[in-house]
Amino acid sequence: MAVYTEVSAEDLDRLLAGYDLGTVKSCKGIAEGVENSNYLVHLDAGFFILTLYEKRVNADDLPFFLGLMRHLAARGLTCPQPVANRNGEILAEVAGRPAALVTFLDGLSVRRVTPVHCAGVGAALAQLHIAGADFALRRPNALALPGWQPLVDQAGARADEVTPGLAGTISAELAFLTAHWPHDLPQGVIHADLFTDNVFFLGEQLSGLIDFYFACNDALVYDLAICLNAWCFEPDFSFNITKGMAMIEAYRGVRALSAAEIAALPILSRGAALRFLLTRLVDWLNVPKGALVRPKDPKEYLRKLRFQQSVTGPRDYGLRD
Amino acid sequence: MAVYTEVSAEDLDRLLAGYDLGTVKSCKGIAEGVENSNYLVHLDAGFFILTLYEKRVNADDLPFFLGLMRHLAARGLTCPQPVANRNGEILAEVAGRPAALVTFLDGLSVRRVTPVHCAGVGAALAQLHIAGADFALRRPNALALPGWQPLVDQAGARADEVTPGLAGTISAELAFLTAHWPHDLPQGVIHADLFTDNVFFLGEQLSGLIDFYFACNDALVYDLAICLNAWCFEPDFSFNITKGMAMIEAYRGVRALSAAEIAALPILSRGAALRFLLTRLVDWLNVPKGALVRPKDPKEYLRKLRFQQSVTGPRDYGLRD
Repeated sequence: MAVYTEVSAEDLDRLLAGYDLGTVKSCKGIAEGVENSNYLVHLDAGFFILTLYEKRVNADDLPFFLGLMRHLAARGLTCPQPVANRNGEILAEVAGRPAALVTFLDGLSVRRVTPVHCAGVGAALAQLHIAGADFALRRPNALALPGWQPLVDQAGARADEVTPGLAGTISAELAFLTAHWPHDLPQGVIHADLFTDNVFFLGEQLSGLIDFYFACNDALVYDLAICLNAWCFEPDFSFNITKGMAMIEAYRGVRALSAAEIAALPILSRGAALRFLLTRLVDWLNVPKGALVRPKDPKEYLRKLRFQQSVTGPRDYGLRD
Repeated sequence: MAVYTEVSAEDLDRLLAGYDLGTVKSCKGIAEGVENSNYLVHLDAGFFILTLYEKRVNADDLPFFLGLMRHLAARGLTCPQPVANRNGEILAEVAGRPAALVTFLDGLSVRRVTPVHCAGVGAALAQLHIAGADFALRRPNALALPGWQPLVDQAGARADEVTPGLAGTISAELAFLTAHWPHDLPQGVIHADLFTDNVFFLGEQLSGLIDFYFACNDALVYDLAICLNAWCFEPDFSFNITKGMAMIEAYRGVRALSAAEIAALPILSRGAALRFLLTRLVDWLNVPKGALVRPKDPKEYLRKLRFQQSVTGPRDYGLRD
């Protein structure tokens, strides 16, 4: 949560000259997103978010991300909508960075998650999967199973600095997942990072999804596995089966899960837990000097992985037959 | 520029229950102010700023700061206006911190300062001094001359880590100022921190003043000396006499300067340069581990102090007879 690149009034005037949105009345750097710089800008036409893409986002992926948001918004999903300039372009440049102006969404991230929130997320996730079905661009998931070994190598023996034995736990888990990972599940566009920070609510009503910068093509049900990990654990890392049931049932109310998808949920959830354990671990071990962002504790996902390893079948998530 | 305290939806609901502003539609932590946490909140009644006062602000001073903003706004100065709850209170508590909800002001901080901006600041500063004349509360300036020796002591010999000889320069300067400081100048409420971050413009038109958390009672013309230091130097630290003239003349167009005030401008400007050199130096030497804010370079104010030491009279600031 930081603003990495400063934007001057002159930068804004130069950008806005290409749009039909009037002049800049206000511009505040906001603490949102860990990868990019975000500004809340007040224009004559209303409030918008200006995102400057920093180094961790590959500029070649921006047409996919921005095109996807536009595609999903056109299909009724509430997500930030890229605004085109007078030439029809949605990708701009501000202060030497690739940048985009998107619509401002009302809503708040929840901190105390209830089963109602989980149901909202399940339904929105299924809507996203359906709305994304006819999106023309493709982006492989760089953080799918084949991408995990390089993370394991990066962490190396230093994993044990976080918890003794962690390097061994990770290696064994990756070997297990590699041996058992399913490959024939329905594929499509997934959000891949639908944590509480990236979902807005107004009261108990879901009002929007944001931050599509990990979106990619992968097994649809893997997205649900990520959300079970992100939303359905209690602060003591026990899995809340009421929340899991609410999320899965709401998902199925919008998009049916096949028998193969249901059967795959436990192993995909183990995989999702390992994936976030690995990226957090690597970030934790590599905090740059003078960093403005505190890395998230990888141990949270070790606790979740341990639960996932103990799961005996889809029913443990609250799934009903 | 950081958000130190997180505010949850529940915290906001609890706060807003006491006001007639409707429900919370959005809340973004903004990168504004170095001392406090600030949120831009969207309520049914519009956009507001929620400020949580962190440790560096003395809670006992809040009635002065908030009362002053309200007093000045009532007299037509554009500054954030504290919003009272149904009991008429403007000071609240959020997430265990003293907090206040103030009106949202449009406008942008300028980075490339022109003489037109300097004139705007000069006129607004004089308006502030006139509007503050009948404000009932008093707050001594903790960072006036008697407050500088403790800062010198805090920095001590470590000043020389920044630039060899700095400790000696500072001691000699403080001795000079102590011997020559004027004590009979017109007093009143001063902003005391009117840097570019704290002034908003829409185009070339000044649209508001913010951040009154250093405001206090002191010599009015000392505020002008602070602004000459903050606004009228070029990036190479040469003083821009056109900007100085624009600021001083615009100030005099609203509030007359006495002969004593004009004569005191050089020594007060030396004092203002030393005051910001000292606080930046102490901050620079005491960056806490894991700090989210990069301290400002004290050497900027050493360069400015050297100019101020070379000034031979008020005419060097562009002052006309």
